[in-house]
Amino acid sequence: MNNIGLIGLAVMGQNLALNIARKGYSLSGYNRSHETTEKFIKEKVKDEKIYPYYDIKSFVESLEKPRKIILMVKAGKPVDDVIHELLPYLDEGDLIIDGGNSYFKDTDRRIKVLKDKGIHYLGMGVSGGEFGALNGPSLMPGGTKEAYEMVRELLLKIAAKTDSGECCTYVGNDSAGHFVKMVHNGIEYAIMQSISEVYDVMRKVLKLTSEEIGDIFEKWNNGELNSFLMEISYKIMKHKDDKTGKPLVELILDEAEQKGTGKWTAETSLDLGIPTPSLNLAVVGRTLSFFKDDRVRLSKMVNRNYPENALNKDDVVEDLKNALLFSVFSSFSQGMWLISEASKVYGYGIDLKEVLRIWKGGCIIRARLLDFLMEIISEDNANLLLDAKSVKFLEEKIDAVKKVTKLAKDNYIPMLTVNASLDYFYSMSEENLPANLIQGQRDYFGAHTYKRIDMDGIFHTEWQQD
Amino acid sequence: MNNIGLIGLAVMGQNLALNIARKGYSLSGYNRSHETTEKFIKEKVKDEKIYPYYDIKSFVESLEKPRKIILMVKAGKPVDDVIHELLPYLDEGDLIIDGGNSYFKDTDRRIKVLKDKGIHYLGMGVSGGEFGALNGPSLMPGGTKEAYEMVRELLLKIAAKTDSGECCTYVGNDSAGHFVKMVHNGIEYAIMQSISEVYDVMRKVLKLTSEEIGDIFEKWNNGELNSFLMEISYKIMKHKDDKTGKPLVELILDEAEQKGTGKWTAETSLDLGIPTPSLNLAVVGRTLSFFKDDRVRLSKMVNRNYPENALNKDDVVEDLKNALLFSVFSSFSQGMWLISEASKVYGYGIDLKEVLRIWKGGCIIRARLLDFLMEIISEDNANLLLDAKSVKFLEEKIDAVKKVTKLAKDNYIPMLTVNASLDYFYSMSEENLPANLIQGQRDYFGAHTYKRIDMDGIFHTEWQQD
Repeated sequence: MNNIGLIGLAVMGQNLALNIARKGYSLSGYNRSHETTEKFIKEKVKDEKIYPYYDIKSFVESLEKPRKIILMVKAGKPVDDVIHELLPYLDEGDLIIDGGNSYFKDTDRRIKVLKDKGIHYLGMGVSGGEFGALNGPSLMPGGTKEAYEMVRELLLKIAAKTDSGECCTYVGNDSAGHFVKMVHNGIEYAIMQSISEVYDVMRKVLKLTSEEIGDIFEKWNNGELNSFLMEISYKIMKHKDDKTGKPLVELILDEAEQKGTGKWTAETSLDLGIPTPSLNLAVVGRTLSFFKDDRVRLSKMVNRNYPENALNKDDVVEDLKNALLFSVFSSFSQGMWLISEASKVYGYGIDLKEVLRIWKGGCIIRARLLDFLMEIISEDNANLLLDAKSVKFLEEKIDAVKKVTKLAKDNYIPMLTVNASLDYFYSMSEENLPANLIQGQRDYFGAHTYKRIDMDGIFHTEWQQD
Repeated sequence: MNNIGLIGLAVMGQNLALNIARKGYSLSGYNRSHETTEKFIKEKVKDEKIYPYYDIKSFVESLEKPRKIILMVKAGKPVDDVIHELLPYLDEGDLIIDGGNSYFKDTDRRIKVLKDKGIHYLGMGVSGGEFGALNGPSLMPGGTKEAYEMVRELLLKIAAKTDSGECCTYVGNDSAGHFVKMVHNGIEYAIMQSISEVYDVMRKVLKLTSEEIGDIFEKWNNGELNSFLMEISYKIMKHKDDKTGKPLVELILDEAEQKGTGKWTAETSLDLGIPTPSLNLAVVGRTLSFFKDDRVRLSKMVNRNYPENALNKDDVVEDLKNALLFSVFSSFSQGMWLISEASKVYGYGIDLKEVLRIWKGGCIIRARLLDFLMEIISEDNANLLLDAKSVKFLEEKIDAVKKVTKLAKDNYIPMLTVNASLDYFYSMSEENLPANLIQGQRDYFGAHTYKRIDMDGIFHTEWQQD
């Protein structure tokens, strides 16, 4: 009898299986396509105790009870299909763990359905890509505490480790794990977009080569900006194409694709009424990139007057670094706020500091900055802004953000996310926003009423008598 | 027997009933709360042929066949409830028209269910607020052509009229009408937000009084910016509070509320992959405004260094006007693009030019600019950008947008929507966006593959061997 089962042997599943087996567990593997399983066993498995099964029944029967089965299949219908296939062979008390990027509302539905059948279910965010899955991912399991306890030891063993402990914790009730993973990806989108906007200024305004930008990114990665995304960005900038010898990044088509989690984050923030402008515009930035044909056509129709200011390259690079730090902080602020609100609305019971802690290793958004964020986050400061230290951190960078975004504007370079990050802070630190006019307009045309600053109550004005 | 029935006698329903009756139709009215009906009949109805009914059965039986019943009830469950109550008394061939702001997917569901029972159904956007409902709204009916023909004459009579004809047309199949109304509201949010951002610069940077801003808005309303929202904005700025004698707008609390349609537009654009950053951030702007307590707290923690540049007031005002025109155009561009895409995806068969035409009168976003947009829109130019005339229009205003957004940045004023409008144009007119780096990152950590600009195919690089 094996300790654990894993269904879905694409790259992420393969690597997670190897990771688990290398921690001393015996593992049953199953994949819908048998060739994938065979190829995996033949080419990747050495002395790990990984055993292939070619039908669901014998796969399930190979597991010790209570059974623990990890699904690493595509989010959506495939998850329901696998659950449906598994159910006839499962017993009460068995546990299914969905390690994919499932939509959190799907996870809630599945937890509910399976609970009625006595089956435990964890929705678990797994971040870190192929490399993380093999060497230690960041794990974000959510569901019942009881279900978590069944695999706690195993999950802690396979998770990434940092000076703050294992990158795995019981995230919270119901779909808490998948929710947190979704927002993790939303923040990831925003950081990627911010880096790409900074890159755009470097190449178009400062006329730096990809190699030079790679050097700058590498230096940044040795400082405050140290992070997985900064690290891979400098490596990407320096990577030479096998075929042409040119920097590969210059040959990649600028149409960014997406798989849904960033979009869900933006949609969910709109639904819950939490402002996440940087995360939203990071998704929009990808959709904008996708219309290459229109862009090429329109670019030929416009005239541009570039400024002729002499620039001090080093100063601009320093400003770009600070603008990026500002935007990354702002993105985390928005994401954590969204998680905090969801925790209240959905009763997840999430410990925000723990979330930041388990993001410190393994995952795509791991960053040195997280230590700082862990210091300042609390239930009362979920958005990270309301602390003297964060205000200082951001204030010191505002001039840089201003300069960089103005420079971009002068050079016809969009900075959707960096602009949104600044306007987010400007809005949140502004006592008087012009929403009073909007409330006046709404009351004027729709009798939607308004509140006043000088007296309590709900008011309506018969504006049209003017 | 009366010509038509109307359920839901809140202000919008009352005014639409009066409008219909004044065009010579006899109307049966019903409202769940009888007091509302009685009050309406007593206080508002004079010699109009409007007859009250106090139970659904006699209401339905009072109507000539095939019956035509307009619902003016709150979107969501109330619509389903009323349909459920009506059904036992309806006959095949009868028609229900939902004139509320229903979510378009609800409308699709209802059309389908009712079709099976032989009942016609139109989802109809009604814009223009109380005033429009009474004096001529913009009507956006969608559903089958057959259903539309049953009420075409009546709808054309009650709709607003402009030099381009009645503000009513058969919008398209299924939920086309409610979809177009939803986007109408999304554009409305963006225009309102843009106006409020411009107002914010006027009061905070130029230190203009509400009265002075009202004068400027009034002047703008006599020119290119002529529109309903500009008109009510200047009237709002000039309105004095009864109680204090101060400009009322200065006493309204700056927490903007929302009812859902703007949010749905932003979410739908994310779902359909159409970039609508201005519409998206207009919704975010409202959510940001809502956190007044946090804003006040944070505002006391930040230090600001205001610039001391001498400004030429008239020049800045002129720039603000052009920035607003730019942002309004950009918002229409995004909205029309979304409608065009939805028309393809959902098979609505929408005539984009007709949509602009019926927005010319009655509705909240009516504007002189629509004549210009009608000139340049086509199936091949759904987003309005790909035309020499629109490029010229926007190009002439870019300097103003730059100046205004820079001025706002220097003065700690967020311009979420205006910034997004500029970045939208910058992105759409940019041949090379930095999304190549994003694709590189995605391939690095997730093996998501990428395309190249120099050869066909799908590529993956083993980056980690670096």
